[in-house]
Amino acid sequence: MSRFLSQRFADLEAYVPGEQPQDMQYIKLNTNESPFPPAPAVLEAVNAAEINRLNLYPDPEGRALRQKLAEHYNVGIDHIFLANGSDELLNFFFMAFCDQTRPVAFPAVSYGFYPVYACLYRLPYDEIPLREDFRLEPLDYCGIGKNIVIANPNAPTGRIIGVDDIEKIVCSNPDHVVMIDEAYIDFGGESCLPLAGKYENLLVCQTFSKFRSLAGGRLGFAIGSPGLIEDLDKMKYSTNSYNINRLTMAAAIATIENHEYYVNNSRKIQENRAYTVAELNKLGFETLPSMANFIFTCCPRMEGGAFYRALKAKGILVRHWEKAAIADWCRVTIGSREQMDLFLKKVREILKEVD
Amino acid sequence: MSRFLSQRFADLEAYVPGEQPQDMQYIKLNTNESPFPPAPAVLEAVNAAEINRLNLYPDPEGRALRQKLAEHYNVGIDHIFLANGSDELLNFFFMAFCDQTRPVAFPAVSYGFYPVYACLYRLPYDEIPLREDFRLEPLDYCGIGKNIVIANPNAPTGRIIGVDDIEKIVCSNPDHVVMIDEAYIDFGGESCLPLAGKYENLLVCQTFSKFRSLAGGRLGFAIGSPGLIEDLDKMKYSTNSYNINRLTMAAAIATIENHEYYVNNSRKIQENRAYTVAELNKLGFETLPSMANFIFTCCPRMEGGAFYRALKAKGILVRHWEKAAIADWCRVTIGSREQMDLFLKKVREILKEVD
Repeated sequence: MSRFLSQRFADLEAYVPGEQPQDMQYIKLNTNESPFPPAPAVLEAVNAAEINRLNLYPDPEGRALRQKLAEHYNVGIDHIFLANGSDELLNFFFMAFCDQTRPVAFPAVSYGFYPVYACLYRLPYDEIPLREDFRLEPLDYCGIGKNIVIANPNAPTGRIIGVDDIEKIVCSNPDHVVMIDEAYIDFGGESCLPLAGKYENLLVCQTFSKFRSLAGGRLGFAIGSPGLIEDLDKMKYSTNSYNINRLTMAAAIATIENHEYYVNNSRKIQENRAYTVAELNKLGFETLPSMANFIFTCCPRMEGGAFYRALKAKGILVRHWEKAAIADWCRVTIGSREQMDLFLKKVREILKEVD
Repeated sequence: MSRFLSQRFADLEAYVPGEQPQDMQYIKLNTNESPFPPAPAVLEAVNAAEINRLNLYPDPEGRALRQKLAEHYNVGIDHIFLANGSDELLNFFFMAFCDQTRPVAFPAVSYGFYPVYACLYRLPYDEIPLREDFRLEPLDYCGIGKNIVIANPNAPTGRIIGVDDIEKIVCSNPDHVVMIDEAYIDFGGESCLPLAGKYENLLVCQTFSKFRSLAGGRLGFAIGSPGLIEDLDKMKYSTNSYNINRLTMAAAIATIENHEYYVNNSRKIQENRAYTVAELNKLGFETLPSMANFIFTCCPRMEGGAFYRALKAKGILVRHWEKAAIADWCRVTIGSREQMDLFLKKVREILKEVD
């Protein structure tokens, strides 16, 4: 920290992303990336003609991509907002809708970036505890008169709540914005997007980074009422008008056009998830029911940090947090069958070594 | 605006980017893009292997690209910060270093985004008037005890101040950050980058959007003391950790490796600039001395808005602002020789029509 930094950030603790070693010597099961490359059509879309147009600014309104998303989700184009990754979108949510008079609430165990945004903007915020087995109780959010962010499925637990429950939360907080962060919705969960046309205070956030194999492209989007979208636009045009690059827009359009390829990949992930959970069960692991492309699991014989380090020593990266409530647990991304078999092999080795 | 937007943004007026018609029916001389495509090596860098890795997150630290920039500019890698376009960088500057006790100053006629950031963060700010002929007087910034942003060359005027003058400004405000926005420095101007190693309170901002033909890729960077870079990092890791996508990083590395291609393009732009100014002189236009890839020019026979509209009707887009101090003027991007000849042809037609 320099002596020039504004005092209001003196205590701010930034988000720490999962390790991203660039030398590829690890099996990466730590940042919930897809093990599958983009659809072949993406390769065709990011072609020489498009690269040769990089001297020109992208469309700041991203009309072609928003039109494509509007058709896919059957909503109007004015219901769609594009962001440079869903983190940028979350940032705009906290910035636009929360302040001293409009506090924000989110689960005490959830995506680690939520409290960072709350601290960044010095917001009053509630971290609402989860119930037994990390279950999110919808009633804890009903009628609380605060802006709300819920990751559904939640991270790092993988647990999901139903669309009916979300509707109750949205209905019972009519003067506040409810953001449902559906980064992991496409691995078997049911999206609440159909509610977005019905409630002016609901924003649904999705990403191209998981199901759509485009983490390297940086693209997230929100669907909500035109009023909320207009507010998000105001944040964007007051910070960074041209937030999405040309190649990512081209890749994303091809992604939407090849939806079946990704649905097929998701089915494989769900199969690998069931397989991995069953194998871990046999080894005595406790694993939460997951509807995401990761599982949250607890080793029967070791503390979470020790298990994480043992796996890393064997070339496998998973994610662990030094945070009391979840210190026993590790989050493991579901990769390809080969990756999961290698993971399970290393787990068995580790268990043998502590025998 | 929805009823959910925080009241603190009720009066905020966002930035309005230059028109970006997507149908390509205009000659675009309105957003200072390069008329030249990226170097052929960029096409090779954004290859199938890289596109097929889009399922993986980019390196949040951008080490490979920062290393390349560090070598090119002969500074340490910890002196370099990458942003999703230089607008994101400017946003972080206003956010990190300015507050109620640390006001900010910038020229009254300059990049239109500066006052937007100041309003966004509700900062006390000074818009310092330019002198005669839109000249920026360095003494107006010496010892003022405020954070300072100066675009050099300035936009939309194109006028430049010398490195000696910048050094005086930086030296005389030792407790405040001076940001020199060098978006247009590579069209004949002298960069103040050599000062960046010398003063802990200087940040130099550059972009890949102009000289480097990569506006569509969204990339800007700052060079400054490690303390300031650390503060910018804190802003990034508290808003959007993965701010630069994979393909842009690959393209940017190839760009730096092919510097001569861009130097050659810049020489052509400078020739076309001299040619265009000389031709406009013959037609009675008043044009400011420019060191940028645009000129600021005043039609002898029409108000600026009328001139802008007449050109647009003939298929040529330039930029005009409805702002009293510069309402007589238009900013014209310097494109290829063919584009400038077409522009001049249309100007001659317009002048004939008002005869």
